[in-house]
Amino acid sequence: MTFRPLHDRVLVKRVEEESTTKGGIIIPDTAKEKPQEGEIVAVGGGAIKEDGTVRPLDVKAGDRVLFGKWSGTEVTLNGEELLIMKESDILGIMGA
Amino acid sequence: MTFRPLHDRVLVKRVEEESTTKGGIIIPDTAKEKPQEGEIVAVGGGAIKEDGTVRPLDVKAGDRVLFGKWSGTEVTLNGEELLIMKESDILGIMGA
Amino acid sequence: MTFRPLHDRVLVKRVEEESTTKGGIIIPDTAKEKPQEGEIVAVGGGAIKEDGTVRPLDVKAGDRVLFGKWSGTEVTLNGEELLIMKESDILGIMGA
Amino acid sequence: MTFRPLHDRVLVKRVEEESTTKGGIIIPDTAKEKPQEGEIVAVGGGAIKEDGTVRPLDVKAGDRVLFGKWSGTEVTLNGEELLIMKESDILGIMGA
Amino acid sequence: MTFRPLHDRVLVKRVEEESTTKGGIIIPDTAKEKPQEGEIVAVGGGAIKEDGTVRPLDVKAGDRVLFGKWSGTEVTLNGEELLIMKESDILGIMGA
Amino acid sequence: MTFRPLHDRVLVKRVEEESTTKGGIIIPDTAKEKPQEGEIVAVGGGAIKEDGTVRPLDVKAGDRVLFGKWSGTEVTLNGEELLIMKESDILGIMGA
Amino acid sequence: MTFRPLHDRVLVKRVEEESTTKGGIIIPDTAKEKPQEGEIVAVGGGAIKEDGTVRPLDVKAGDRVLFGKWSGTEVTLNGEELLIMKESDILGIMGA
Repeated sequence: MTFRPLHDRVLVKRVEEESTTKGGIIIPDTAKEKPQEGEIVAVGGGAIKEDGTVRPLDVKAGDRVLFGKWSGTEVTLNGEELLIMKESDILGIMGA
Repeated sequence: MTFRPLHDRVLVKRVEEESTTKGGIIIPDTAKEKPQEGEIVAVGGGAIKEDGTVRPLDVKAGDRVLFGKWSGTEVTLNGEELLIMKESDILGIMGA
Repeated sequence: MTFRPLHDRVLVKRVEEESTTKGGIIIPDTAKEKPQEGEIVAVGGGAIKEDGTVRPLDVKAGDRVLFGKWSGTEVTLNGEELLIMKESDILGIMGA
Repeated sequence: MTFRPLHDRVLVKRVEEESTTKGGIIIPDTAKEKPQEGEIVAVGGGAIKEDGTVRPLDVKAGDRVLFGKWSGTEVTLNGEELLIMKESDILGIMGA
Repeated sequence: MTFRPLHDRVLVKRVEEESTTKGGIIIPDTAKEKPQEGEIVAVGGGAIKEDGTVRPLDVKAGDRVLFGKWSGTEVTLNGEELLIMKESDILGIMGA
Repeated sequence: MTFRPLHDRVLVKRVEEESTTKGGIIIPDTAKEKPQEGEIVAVGGGAIKEDGTVRPLDVKAGDRVLFGKWSGTEVTLNGEELLIMKESDILGIMGA
Repeated sequence: MTFRPLHDRVLVKRVEEESTTKGGIIIPDTAKEKPQEGEIVAVGGGAIKEDGTVRPLDVKAGDRVLFGKWSGTEVTLNGEELLIMKESDILGIMGA
């Protein structure tokens, strides 16, 4: 079963904490909201602009991203725990 | 009796929890707001754009969709319990 | 005495609960805000767009509509209890 | 002494409760905000649009109007108690 | 020493209560916010529109105006107590 | 070391209270927020308009200005205590 | 491992307090929010404008900047503690 996010939403698979420490991101231990790492699984067709046309999103399936700890809505799809969030919740994209 | 949602509203029939577990969506057991599954029954004529023209909606009758647990207004029409919500309350569309 | 709603407002006559159960709408017994049924009596000249021009409304006198329980301002005109509300408070239009 | 409301404001003379019952408007006895009847005494030059041009108002001196009970600012001008409010506070115009 | 208000701000000299009763404005004794009378001393160069151009103000030095009791910021300039407020705080202009 | 404010921000040096009484501004003793006097030290490149272009600011280095008591962020640069605020926090410009 | 901020976000390395006093910025000891000094490490592709096009940012990698004490989200990347914030959180750019 597939899931196609609507408009400017994306489907994200949270990366496990084990791989996080391997990958190089260590979340500092403060009271601030801490970003989390994930991988884009699917993206919506684009953000609706004021004139009704569509702006394609700037993230794509496979991108490793950081997002705020409280961003998105949790859902389990085909047995996987995933998050649906808006592109604007994505802080940035990680490279190799 | 038919019901035509106005503008960017849609009429949704909530899918029963039994079919939900069959269909592959399992809602995780957390304190976060959990999305629910439903089927689009009818859609409005489109969202009113700033210039007064209309953008047709991106969901159509028959689409299986996810939406937030607290989205929409409940109504019983012809004996069926349905929800009226805005297209922007739809998180995404499920495929086969 | 007539009443002409201004801009995007409409004048609505609430349909009595008796006719509601006949007509097919049964309001479910939950804590959520429940929509009510009514008939459009008069409509304003249209919504003012950002550029100052006017978008005619998508409801007309005679339409049977659903609206939120707490929508609108009550007024008695020629002995009838009516509601003045905005077109955006209308959830949708009922057909035959 | 005259008073010219600025932009989209209007000057309204509240109609006394006695004439209200004669005129046909009876305010129902509920906890909801109740509209009141008045007569437009003077109107501003028009609403300022986003592009800086002006949209003339849709009410004019002499119009009998309904407005929310708490709308406007009270002022006494030449011994008359009047209200200054915005055109958007006007619910609609009454006819003969 | 002169003072030039910025953009859509105006400099207003509050008219004393004595001259107010002479001038014809009597503030009613209610719990509502009461407007006050003043004279425009200086006006800004105009309101900045969305496209970055300027809309000249609709009040000018010498205008007798009404404004809300709590509008503006008090300042003493050359020994005079004055108010700096936005044009949108002006309710209207009084004539002869 | 220089400091270039970003976009529509300005760098302001607060004028000492001694020079304030000399200069002619006396802050009245009320409970209202009282404006303060300062001198513009540096201005940003301009406000970003909706279409992405830039509107140059209407204040320049050397201007004597009034601003709200609580406006801006304090910073010490090269031993001087300065304020960084937005142009919209400036109430107006003082002349000779 | 690199990190590319999305849209109008920037990645900032906070400058240590020791270098701050050397560099000339001394934060005054008041109750107000105090700006902090940092260096831009990476910038996003630009701010999305209303019409869907992109405005390149006005800061670049290497810029020394001031920002509000509470701005941004903390993240540790390749062992370095960094901040992700929006360009609009940057108060200004420091020169030599």
